[in-house]
Amino acid sequence: MKIAIYGYGNLGKGVEKAIRQNDDMELFGVFTRRNPDSLKIMTEGVGVYSSDDIEKYKNEIDVLIICGGSATDLPEMTPALAKNFNVIDSFDTHADIPAHFARVDKSAKDGGKTAAISVGWDPGMFSLNRLYSNSILPEGKDYTFWGKGVSQGHSDAIRRIEGVLDARQYTCPVEEAMERVRNGENPELTTREKHTRLCYVVAEEGADLARIENEIKTMPKYFSDYDTTVNFISQEELDRDHKGIPHGGSVIRTGVTGINGENKHVIEYKLNLDSNPEFTASVLVAYARAVYKLNKKGETGCKTVFDIAPADLSPMSHEEMISHLL
Amino acid sequence: MKIAIYGYGNLGKGVEKAIRQNDDMELFGVFTRRNPDSLKIMTEGVGVYSSDDIEKYKNEIDVLIICGGSATDLPEMTPALAKNFNVIDSFDTHADIPAHFARVDKSAKDGGKTAAISVGWDPGMFSLNRLYSNSILPEGKDYTFWGKGVSQGHSDAIRRIEGVLDARQYTCPVEEAMERVRNGENPELTTREKHTRLCYVVAEEGADLARIENEIKTMPKYFSDYDTTVNFISQEELDRDHKGIPHGGSVIRTGVTGINGENKHVIEYKLNLDSNPEFTASVLVAYARAVYKLNKKGETGCKTVFDIAPADLSPMSHEEMISHLL
Repeated sequence: MKIAIYGYGNLGKGVEKAIRQNDDMELFGVFTRRNPDSLKIMTEGVGVYSSDDIEKYKNEIDVLIICGGSATDLPEMTPALAKNFNVIDSFDTHADIPAHFARVDKSAKDGGKTAAISVGWDPGMFSLNRLYSNSILPEGKDYTFWGKGVSQGHSDAIRRIEGVLDARQYTCPVEEAMERVRNGENPELTTREKHTRLCYVVAEEGADLARIENEIKTMPKYFSDYDTTVNFISQEELDRDHKGIPHGGSVIRTGVTGINGENKHVIEYKLNLDSNPEFTASVLVAYARAVYKLNKKGETGCKTVFDIAPADLSPMSHEEMISHLL
Repeated sequence: MKIAIYGYGNLGKGVEKAIRQNDDMELFGVFTRRNPDSLKIMTEGVGVYSSDDIEKYKNEIDVLIICGGSATDLPEMTPALAKNFNVIDSFDTHADIPAHFARVDKSAKDGGKTAAISVGWDPGMFSLNRLYSNSILPEGKDYTFWGKGVSQGHSDAIRRIEGVLDARQYTCPVEEAMERVRNGENPELTTREKHTRLCYVVAEEGADLARIENEIKTMPKYFSDYDTTVNFISQEELDRDHKGIPHGGSVIRTGVTGINGENKHVIEYKLNLDSNPEFTASVLVAYARAVYKLNKKGETGCKTVFDIAPADLSPMSHEEMISHLL
């Protein structure tokens, strides 16, 4: 199947790399809002096109993977493109998912196309595990821990402070809290008890470090509800020690069974990722395969990870799957 | 929906308890090959029937959960019952799954019914996680660790030795091997390096303990490929300290992404279960809901966990799911 990438940031580059790992797919091209001539991609012999021209290629692309931001790009792009293309995105503004779903669903149904939204690891694989675990253990409690990983949003928030040249923020789960959950203690945990925030900051020469540290630690929504550590380092140190984009986390459900809830069970799904965008891209590519298969079967409209049978993600035949993986 | 239980051992009892935790279900009755009058069940006002009479009730049962053994019961029962009932089983003889699938599929299609086989945690939730992880990380390696948990088959094998009155065998994962896998070392592990076997044995008075221990440790297939520890204890100790049926384990996939496989990722799905049969029963009950929904939609024939969309397992509406779990 022929996959096209719409938007060539970290996620788009991750998709390009993931397509190379899947023999049943090839990259049709990359679409960009920038000048196509300014873009150099990794795959030989594959074109870069202006996003303005995309409709010309609507008969040549099997699935379009939209790699835009959730704040302003995807709410516009995905419904618009779903009219003419099978599409997939990683929309991650949790509160707005129902409205985004409705718009994409209408558009895809009107065009006879298949779409999948909010695909990645959270939302995505973490959501799936919440759904499976809740269905299996109706009497229980859900916990989600993130990290240790880089939060782009928090790093950006620090960079906007006066006197800050660069910054990298790690979200860290509190290990003791996770252990209590894994032991089935069912603790009630506050925001502060679940995660800490670790910041590496490059300041301008002569900047007031105490003021910067205070502005970070008291920043509402981003840092004030957490125990935050601020380390000032040089740009060289930041570039050398903090250039990766790792992330991960755990979805845990603890629940009980038995006539009086006498038996405890713990289900944990854990990710430890060297590259957040490359892993997200790998999930997108597997679901692109499913979108393609669903469209072939005539199942149009918008889907989420909840609506797609696991078999549709795999390149294996049904016989292979039940022989080797079941 | 009305659920019936076919077979009332540990698994059937677990299903009875699980149905009580799900408000959208009620127990229609229990079917047994024993004398129905000899069976006392936990749910008030619900009948116990002879398995010989089951066809009389075919219009009153929405889904039949077949709780028989994989060795001889299920290969006969599931295809026979799938003609007249929506059915679900936990068939776990991995090598025979394709043949079992084919027989159940034919039977269910002939009768316009929906069936799901090999539902539980392994096969079942572990299989699902193997499929998802393989689809997301095509370049990688799978590991499955079991335990610490009771193996009924190995306990039974010890009980057959002359001079043994009772026994309980625990399968234990080797923690160091799991840590190497979680660290992304991709080790090649032999059977002996992955699991150990821990046995608690009650011997007849005056029995030759050295002979019993030797017979256990050298038993082909069951113990000879493992480091096995044998502890002789009294019946009182066995009954007091080893009456539970805990189990669990981890499915881990480690894989790489990037242009040269430079980024490592680890996906782990981990279960820690106080009661193996009650957890298996809880999975069966969630999939019974899916079987019911699929049959209503006209999707007949045999399914596995691979073929069923996660949304079908949940009692939630689609709106609730995407608002609260995605």
